[in-house]
Amino acid sequence: MSLDPARMQSMANAIRALSMDAVQTANSGHPGMPMGMADVATVLWSDYLKFDPAAPQWADRDRFILSAGHGSMLIYSLLHLSGYAAPTIEDIKNFRQIGSPCAGHPENFLLDGVECTTGPLGQGLAMGVGMAMAERHLNATFGDDLVDHKTWVIAGDGCLMEGINHEAIGLAGHHKLGRLNVLWDDNAITIDGGTDLSTSEDIKARFEATGWHVTTCDGHDFADIARAMDEAVAAERPSLIACKTVIGKGAPNKQGTSATHGAPLGPDEIAAARAELGWTHDPFIVPGDVKSDWALTGDAGRSASREWQARLDASEHKAELERRMAGILPDGDAFADYMASLIDEPQKVATRKASEMALNVINQALPDTIGGSADLTGSNNTKAGGIEAFTAENYAGRYLYWGIREFGMAAAMNGMALHGGVIPYGGTFLVFTDYARGAIRLSALQQQRVIYVMTHDSIGLGEDGPTHQPIEHLASLRAMPNVLVMRPADTVETAECWKIALEQSDRPSILALSRQGLPQMRLEASDSVLSGRGGYRLKSAEAERKVVLIATGSEVHLAAECAVELEAQGIGADVVSMVCTELFDEQDAAYREDIIPGGALKVSIEAGTTFGWERYTGLKGLNIGLDRFGASAPAGDLFAKFGFTAEAIVPQIVSKIQE
Amino acid sequence: MSLDPARMQSMANAIRALSMDAVQTANSGHPGMPMGMADVATVLWSDYLKFDPAAPQWADRDRFILSAGHGSMLIYSLLHLSGYAAPTIEDIKNFRQIGSPCAGHPENFLLDGVECTTGPLGQGLAMGVGMAMAERHLNATFGDDLVDHKTWVIAGDGCLMEGINHEAIGLAGHHKLGRLNVLWDDNAITIDGGTDLSTSEDIKARFEATGWHVTTCDGHDFADIARAMDEAVAAERPSLIACKTVIGKGAPNKQGTSATHGAPLGPDEIAAARAELGWTHDPFIVPGDVKSDWALTGDAGRSASREWQARLDASEHKAELERRMAGILPDGDAFADYMASLIDEPQKVATRKASEMALNVINQALPDTIGGSADLTGSNNTKAGGIEAFTAENYAGRYLYWGIREFGMAAAMNGMALHGGVIPYGGTFLVFTDYARGAIRLSALQQQRVIYVMTHDSIGLGEDGPTHQPIEHLASLRAMPNVLVMRPADTVETAECWKIALEQSDRPSILALSRQGLPQMRLEASDSVLSGRGGYRLKSAEAERKVVLIATGSEVHLAAECAVELEAQGIGADVVSMVCTELFDEQDAAYREDIIPGGALKVSIEAGTTFGWERYTGLKGLNIGLDRFGASAPAGDLFAKFGFTAEAIVPQIVSKIQE
Repeated sequence: MSLDPARMQSMANAIRALSMDAVQTANSGHPGMPMGMADVATVLWSDYLKFDPAAPQWADRDRFILSAGHGSMLIYSLLHLSGYAAPTIEDIKNFRQIGSPCAGHPENFLLDGVECTTGPLGQGLAMGVGMAMAERHLNATFGDDLVDHKTWVIAGDGCLMEGINHEAIGLAGHHKLGRLNVLWDDNAITIDGGTDLSTSEDIKARFEATGWHVTTCDGHDFADIARAMDEAVAAERPSLIACKTVIGKGAPNKQGTSATHGAPLGPDEIAAARAELGWTHDPFIVPGDVKSDWALTGDAGRSASREWQARLDASEHKAELERRMAGILPDGDAFADYMASLIDEPQKVATRKASEMALNVINQALPDTIGGSADLTGSNNTKAGGIEAFTAENYAGRYLYWGIREFGMAAAMNGMALHGGVIPYGGTFLVFTDYARGAIRLSALQQQRVIYVMTHDSIGLGEDGPTHQPIEHLASLRAMPNVLVMRPADTVETAECWKIALEQSDRPSILALSRQGLPQMRLEASDSVLSGRGGYRLKSAEAERKVVLIATGSEVHLAAECAVELEAQGIGADVVSMVCTELFDEQDAAYREDIIPGGALKVSIEAGTTFGWERYTGLKGLNIGLDRFGASAPAGDLFAKFGFTAEAIVPQIVSKIQE
Repeated sequence: MSLDPARMQSMANAIRALSMDAVQTANSGHPGMPMGMADVATVLWSDYLKFDPAAPQWADRDRFILSAGHGSMLIYSLLHLSGYAAPTIEDIKNFRQIGSPCAGHPENFLLDGVECTTGPLGQGLAMGVGMAMAERHLNATFGDDLVDHKTWVIAGDGCLMEGINHEAIGLAGHHKLGRLNVLWDDNAITIDGGTDLSTSEDIKARFEATGWHVTTCDGHDFADIARAMDEAVAAERPSLIACKTVIGKGAPNKQGTSATHGAPLGPDEIAAARAELGWTHDPFIVPGDVKSDWALTGDAGRSASREWQARLDASEHKAELERRMAGILPDGDAFADYMASLIDEPQKVATRKASEMALNVINQALPDTIGGSADLTGSNNTKAGGIEAFTAENYAGRYLYWGIREFGMAAAMNGMALHGGVIPYGGTFLVFTDYARGAIRLSALQQQRVIYVMTHDSIGLGEDGPTHQPIEHLASLRAMPNVLVMRPADTVETAECWKIALEQSDRPSILALSRQGLPQMRLEASDSVLSGRGGYRLKSAEAERKVVLIATGSEVHLAAECAVELEAQGIGADVVSMVCTELFDEQDAAYREDIIPGGALKVSIEAGTTFGWERYTGLKGLNIGLDRFGASAPAGDLFAKFGFTAEAIVPQIVSKIQE
C-alpha cells in the first residue's frame, strides 16, 4: 500500500460521510453499499486502478464498473475525491435532484468515469465481461504498448443472483479473461433481509466451477484487501474477490442490516456514525489532508497516461487506433460495388441471407466489427467475410460463439461498444429479444452502437411454432426509446439497413430478418439510401390513388401483389415500404404527408401484432396483422391460415373502400 | 428394472425410429435429442415416472417436463407409446403440420401429458422448480396420502447455459426440493458445434455448489441409468443426473455431431440407422411385442391412481383439493365489506398500497394464493394477510422470498399455476418485466393464471432514475397476446383489478401500480365491477362535450384536474379511466363507441410512451405521454419537467380544439 492505514481510513471515511450525507439530503438512496465497500474502493483507487482524472477518455485506462449501481454514491465520491472535473461537491449535494449528474443510478452519459449505466442488477458485471473481451481483442490487434488494461467490477449479492451473471461469468471463464477482476461485496444482506432468506449457494465454489480464480479478503482490512488484489492481478484466470464486508459500516446501530440498504440513515444514526468514525466534519466538507491524500491517487495514472500518449504518438497504429476509439467509420463506400451487383442481378433470398451477403462486404472492409450468434450461427447467418473465431487462444478473432446466452451476449456487446474500438453485432431469433430485452434497453439508454441481427422474424419461420414466432416483438421494440427497429424487404434494403445501423453512433439497431426467401423488390439503382427515410414509396398508384399499402419486410412483396390486383380493379394503390418507423417519424411533416397522405385508405400489412399501426392508418384504416400467438406448420400454410395472402386481403380493402 | 435390457432396447429404439421418421417426413425438426435420450427416457417411463395414461390430469401424478423442447418427438413418442389417447400415430405422421397436436415444440394446450410449453431454453427447468414447490406446498396442506409426487425434467446443455437455470437451481437448492430430479442430456453438442466452442464450465460442480445432489450415468446403459435414478430418488436434495449420451445415437455416421441436432437425418442415414439399430420396420410401424412392452409402463401408475382416488374419496379434503386443482374460486364475495369500507372512508394511498390492502382480504379469504417478491417485499407490498414464509422448514408457508430472480420467479410461477392447486402472484418493479419477459410470454401462451404485481409503474417512482422508470413497458406488454395489463387509478379500481385477475382462469394479469399516493377517484358504490369493462366513463362532461380525456392509473386524477379547468372554460370533457385496454377492446362496438365517441377530441394521458394510443385517439387526437427515457429527480419535479400537469396539458387541448 502506498499510504499508512490511518490515512487510508480517513480516505475511506470521506466516502462514508459523503454517501450518508448525500442520501440524507436527497432523502432517498442507498447508503449501505458505499459505506460497506468504502475501504475496498479506497485500496482499489489508491493502488490498483489505472486512471487519469484529467484524461477520463484515455483509451488504455482501466475500466471500473459499479455493477451494484444503487450504491451510486460510492462512484460519485470516488470521482469527486480523486479529482475528476465532475461531479463537483455541488453536484453531490444535489444527488438525485433534477439536473444533477449524480443520478440515482450511475449514467454513462452524465459523467466521465462512469463507464456504463448500472442499476439493473447483473448487467454491469456482464458489460465488464464485454469490456474485457474488447480489451483483449484490441490488445491482439494493436499490441501491449497501446492496449493493456484491466477491468474492475464491484458486484453485489443481487448481481450474483441474477441469471445474467451465470452467462457472463461463463463467458469470462471460457475466454480466460485474466484481466477481469470482480470485487464481490459479500455482505450477506439484500433488501428483504439476510441473503439466507433466498439463497444457500456457495458462490465461491460456483465461480471456481466456471473457471475463475477465487480469493477472499476482509473488506475492512486494507492490507488484506491489497493481498487479495495482488492475487487477482497475478491470476491468469478472471478473479473473484469475495470481500467480506459489513453493509453500512460505520453506522453503529444499523450496520450489518437491511435497514442501511435503501433508505437514509436518519439524523440520529448519522450523528452516531460521525462519532463512530471519528469524522468531525460538517456534511460535504472534506478536510485538506484527506483531500490531498485522495489527490495522490491519480498520480500513477497521470504518468502512465503521458507515457502511453508518447508511445501512441510514435506508433504506426496511431491514426487507426484513434479512429476506432472515436467510433468513426473509415472513408469510402464499401457497398457501392455490392449494391450495383444486386441491381445487375436481382436475387431472391431470405433477408437473413441478404444480411450475410452484406456482412461479407462489411467484415472485409471494416476491421471494427466483431460479430457472433447465441448458438444460431447457421440460422442467423452472422459468420461472414472470412472472420475467424475469437477464442482464448486467438483474441484477434472477430467471430463470437456466444453460446446459448442471449442476455449475456447483449450485455457484453454493450460493454464492447462502451469500451470502444469495436462495433459489435450479434444474432439470435427475434422472439428471443425477450431474453435479452434488459440489455437491449441499456443499449438504447446508454446510446451505444450495438447491432442486433434478429432473424426468423415472423410466423414465416414456420414449423418451430408459437414459442419461436414473434408476434408482439416488433411493436414492443418500436415502443422503446432510441432504438432503430428495421425490417428490410429484400437484399437492397437489407444492405441499406446495415449501412444505416453502422452509421448510428449513438443508438442501437435491430435488424428483423426473414427466415424465408423474399423476392428483390428494389430493381433500380438509387442515388440515396431510400431506407434512410424510414418509409418510402416503393410503387406509385397507376389508377387514381385510393389506397396506400404500408408494409414491412416479408410483407412488402405481398403488398405489391395486392396492389397489382387492386389496380386490375381500377383501384390505384401506392405501396410504401416502412423499413423503420422511428426513422420515418423523424422526417419532416411534408415528407410524411406525401408518403402517407390524407384521403386515401391506409392499410398496414405486417405479420405481427397490429398494435401501434393506427399511428399510420388512423381509426378508419385497415390493419392486417396477427393479434394472437402463431402455430406450428410450414410457413406457407401459416400465411394462408392467418390471412396473409392477396386473396384474403384485397377483398377487405375493396369492402373498406366501399364503406 | 422391470424388463430385460434387450426388450428395453427395442422400446428405446421405437422412440428413435418414430423420431427420425417423423422429422424426416416433416422435413424439419430435431432428431438428435430424442435419439440420444431414448434410453434414459425408456427407463424413466418404465420404472420411475408415476403416470396413468387414462387419467392424465390425475392430481398426484409425477410431472415430466421436456425442458429441451426442441426434442419434442421424444415426448410425443413417449405419450403415444405408453398409451395416452393422443398423440395418435396419425398425429405423429403429421408432426409439425397444421392442425397436428405434435407441434414443433411441445404445447401444454395441445396434449395431455405435456405439462408445459417448452422450447425457450431453460424455462422448462424453471417451471419444474415451480411445480416442485407447489407439490411440497400442497403436500404440507393436504398430507402425504393425497399429494406426494415427483418432478422430472430433461434438460439440455442449452437449458444449463441460459441464465434462468442459475436462478431456478438456486431456488431448488435453497428450498431443498428433493423430489425434483433433473436429467441432463450431457451430449456436449450444441447447434453451433461442440459445447467447448462456448463453455468450459464444470456443471456438476456448479450444481453441487448450489445445494444439489449430483450423480452421473452412462445414458445408454439401462442398469446404470436405473442406479442413478435410484440415487436421485433417495437424495433429500434436488438431484442432477448427468446422463452421458451420444446425440443422435443410432445414426451411425452422424451421431455425436451437431449434424443431428436440428435437421432431418436424410434417407441414407435413416436407412443406415435402421441397420445399426436392427430396426426392420417401416416408418411409423411399431411391432406388437414392443407395443405390449410399452403398454406395461402405465400399469403401476394405473394402480396407484386407483388407490389414490379411493383415498381421496375417503378424505375430508376431497372437496377442497378438487376445487383447488380445478382452479375454481370459492363462492362468495370476500371483497364486499372491503369495498364498502372504501366508499365510506376514501383513502389517498399509492396503488401498490391499495394492492396490499386488497391482498389482506384475498389472502385471508382464499387459501390458494401463494405470493412473493423478487427482493422488493417492502416496495411491492406483496406480503399481506398474515401469510408466513414458504421455507424448506415450512412448505405450508405462502410467502416467497424469491431473491433477486425476476425471470426465475416468473417461470416458477408458471410452473405453480400449471401444477394447479395454487394461484401464484409475484412482484417486482414494472421496468423489470424486461428481465422476466420470456416467462410472462409463456404465462400468456400457456393460458395460465399468474398475477404480476408490478409496482413503481412510471417516472412517478422518482429518484431511482431512467434505469428504473418504465416508459415503453405498458405498451410493450399490451402488445403481447392474451395478457391483461391493468393500471388502476385508486383503491377501488385496484381491488377491482385484483378481483378480475383472480377470475381469469386462462390468462395472466399484470397489475401496474404506483409508488406515489393517489387520490381515490371512485367515491360511489357500484353494482358492477366497472374496471371489468376495461375502460369506463368516470366523469361525464358538464358543458357540451368536446373532449374525451382517456387516462390510466396515476394520470386519471390528472385528467380529472384537466377536466375541471376545461369545464371552467366552457369546454365539456368526459374523463375515461382506461384501466385495461385488452378488456375494453373485448367490449361490443356500441359500448366502445359510447365511451370513446366520434366527434369529440380524444386525448390520451399516460406517463409512458404514446405508442399505441392512436388506437383510441386516432390521427387527430392528442397523445400526452413520454417518448424518451426518464430522469432522476423527485416525482413531482419529473411530472412537471415532462409536462404531466394540468397547466401544461390544458392549453394543448384548447389549442387543438381551435385548430
